[in-house]
Amino acid sequence: MLIVQKFGGTSVGTLERIEAVANRVIETKNVGADVVVVVSAMSGVTNQLVEYGEHFSKHPDGVAMDMLLSSGEQVTTAILSIALNAKGYETVGLTGAMAGIITDDIHTKARIEKIDTKRIKKELNSGKIVVVAGFQGIDEHGNITTLGRGGSDLSAVALAGALKADLCEIFTDVDGVYTTDPRIEKKARKLEKISYDEMLELASAGAKVLQNRSVEMAKKLNVKLVTRSSFNHNEGTLITQEDSMEAVLVSGIALDKNQARVTLRGVVDKPGIAAEIFTALANENINVDMIIQNVGLDGTTNLGFTVPQNELEIAKETMQKLNAAKHVEYDDAIVKVSIVGVGMKSHSGVACLAFETLAKEGINIQMISTSEIKISLVVDQKYGELAVRVLHEAYKLDK
Amino acid sequence: MLIVQKFGGTSVGTLERIEAVANRVIETKNVGADVVVVVSAMSGVTNQLVEYGEHFSKHPDGVAMDMLLSSGEQVTTAILSIALNAKGYETVGLTGAMAGIITDDIHTKARIEKIDTKRIKKELNSGKIVVVAGFQGIDEHGNITTLGRGGSDLSAVALAGALKADLCEIFTDVDGVYTTDPRIEKKARKLEKISYDEMLELASAGAKVLQNRSVEMAKKLNVKLVTRSSFNHNEGTLITQEDSMEAVLVSGIALDKNQARVTLRGVVDKPGIAAEIFTALANENINVDMIIQNVGLDGTTNLGFTVPQNELEIAKETMQKLNAAKHVEYDDAIVKVSIVGVGMKSHSGVACLAFETLAKEGINIQMISTSEIKISLVVDQKYGELAVRVLHEAYKLDK
Repeated sequence: MLIVQKFGGTSVGTLERIEAVANRVIETKNVGADVVVVVSAMSGVTNQLVEYGEHFSKHPDGVAMDMLLSSGEQVTTAILSIALNAKGYETVGLTGAMAGIITDDIHTKARIEKIDTKRIKKELNSGKIVVVAGFQGIDEHGNITTLGRGGSDLSAVALAGALKADLCEIFTDVDGVYTTDPRIEKKARKLEKISYDEMLELASAGAKVLQNRSVEMAKKLNVKLVTRSSFNHNEGTLITQEDSMEAVLVSGIALDKNQARVTLRGVVDKPGIAAEIFTALANENINVDMIIQNVGLDGTTNLGFTVPQNELEIAKETMQKLNAAKHVEYDDAIVKVSIVGVGMKSHSGVACLAFETLAKEGINIQMISTSEIKISLVVDQKYGELAVRVLHEAYKLDK
Repeated sequence: MLIVQKFGGTSVGTLERIEAVANRVIETKNVGADVVVVVSAMSGVTNQLVEYGEHFSKHPDGVAMDMLLSSGEQVTTAILSIALNAKGYETVGLTGAMAGIITDDIHTKARIEKIDTKRIKKELNSGKIVVVAGFQGIDEHGNITTLGRGGSDLSAVALAGALKADLCEIFTDVDGVYTTDPRIEKKARKLEKISYDEMLELASAGAKVLQNRSVEMAKKLNVKLVTRSSFNHNEGTLITQEDSMEAVLVSGIALDKNQARVTLRGVVDKPGIAAEIFTALANENINVDMIIQNVGLDGTTNLGFTVPQNELEIAKETMQKLNAAKHVEYDDAIVKVSIVGVGMKSHSGVACLAFETLAKEGINIQMISTSEIKISLVVDQKYGELAVRVLHEAYKLDK
């Protein structure tokens, strides 16, 4: 049995915590599994390194920046190796390059192209615990690269895939994936199991347990993912392929507070105007999320969409330059509530229940968008948490 | 023209100092030279990393320790690259491994076996300033190694040799090599030039500008070394091959306060006893420096030697176990004064002047040892600085 375990920055934030991680790894090793451990930089270290780099330039050279940032994970890798070794276990620490993680050369946000597993397999075969620096790789020019946000999770999943590991455990400071944010709804329940697609929708709907890139890769490589806490021994949540026999109607409710709404009333009536608007936004790297379009009373078109709050200003500037509508309204006092569940595919009436539930509470729905397994609703910010709680109850997620 | 410049931990101790180093490198680049820069870890960083490693074990795993320690130089390399790049210069930062520095696998004190200069030459040919992480390399197993104390100097000298550089400049916080320690003798004069052999003798006699390993390698590879200050533009000291035409009688006086004397009176009279004593000391890794042997009045042998002060206790224990002499005396209130100069080779009477000078001041000489270009004298600690000053004047070193 081969298990890949990934420990994030908080889990390795101090020498004491690294020792706890070592003990955790050893528990797994002692039940007879081969273990590959992927680690992040100690919490705070990456920010410090970014500060160093940005001291000289707002946009520091990417090749050098990656050399700088990658040192953080290298340090954790070495320290954990020393800790495991001191406890009597044969261990080897590997940088991303040494672990054979080959990426493209888009520095600071490289993509993994392939993994040459020779070295890792050799070390595993000789009985060693292999510790790998997450978040990093090497490009074809022999330069160090980093994978961007959530990069260490990605390293772990990619390694699990390449090594055909039986399990990839992502250790964080939360117990797993919940039916909704327990800080909002005390009755939120930890899910034993969730499908890749549900996890993807939950993540894009604002639940931050795992980055979408990692879940997408896990789905593609068919890696069984478990997310669990490094601070206790509770079972986590297994993220795996959808099992239609067990499909639940709704798995979770997510709240995304980082959205702002842009509404264009009386959009200029010319072919391709929508394409023009969204191309202009894309050119500014603005992540448009929900889009709705309606014909207004006077025959002109109304168009609405949401963007992340911190991109609203650029969106405003872009809209002013385009001058594509009579009136443009902006509203950052909104939130997006999402209901996610694979069961929706084969059940009707799931959306209706949401509409009824919110109506009963007098919560006005400003925008609606649906996918096969998700219903997203934009509501006034002040109703966000209430909406989560009543929907959580309506879909019986506490049961 | 190709110049290798090495900047130590103090010279890159803060972001401001790294910026000053960048400016210094750019000055050299702007006069038309190709530049390879070798950097140490920012001062304090290596100690911090050692603490991390030794938290878990008094003798942490060497492979992991090297991965840990090497991150310090990697960070400086990246930051300096970013600084140079931000100032408009094409730059590439390389770890020891990327720079092709191949070592043996004796971790934490590896020896450079060869340098594959392909990558560096390619980067230099494309006009880039090449920044290399000092103190580190890679072994045949693909593991990171470090070179031990003075390792960054060694990296610089080895690179200068392999690249056939015109000059290797070692930047520190002192102006160069002095006729003696300016804190002891205000009239001490900075030497323009000194031979490798003199530098080696001075270093082993307690002058700490350069580690012997680096000077030995510079001599072997015929690398022209300059040691100078990174904090001003004063000319430094050139360390190069001996030029017999210009050979000065005496180049410098060094004071080594870190010695202790062990004297064995009435050594047991049996063949091989001296070998037995020094083998026992060597087995304890005690660095014996001066050795003198004399026949005593009663026909028995007297034997004296010096060891570093911090190794005196182990030396005592070793002597007690051996029980090789009637009386053993220990004295750590002594110092070693050394007079170094290639001119001694062809001049007689150099030692006499020293004896006369010290006698005039009433300074008793406890031990004498000489090499081709050095005379070392052990005297009472309290006379150490006085001895340096009167010898400095006697040999006219202030002129």
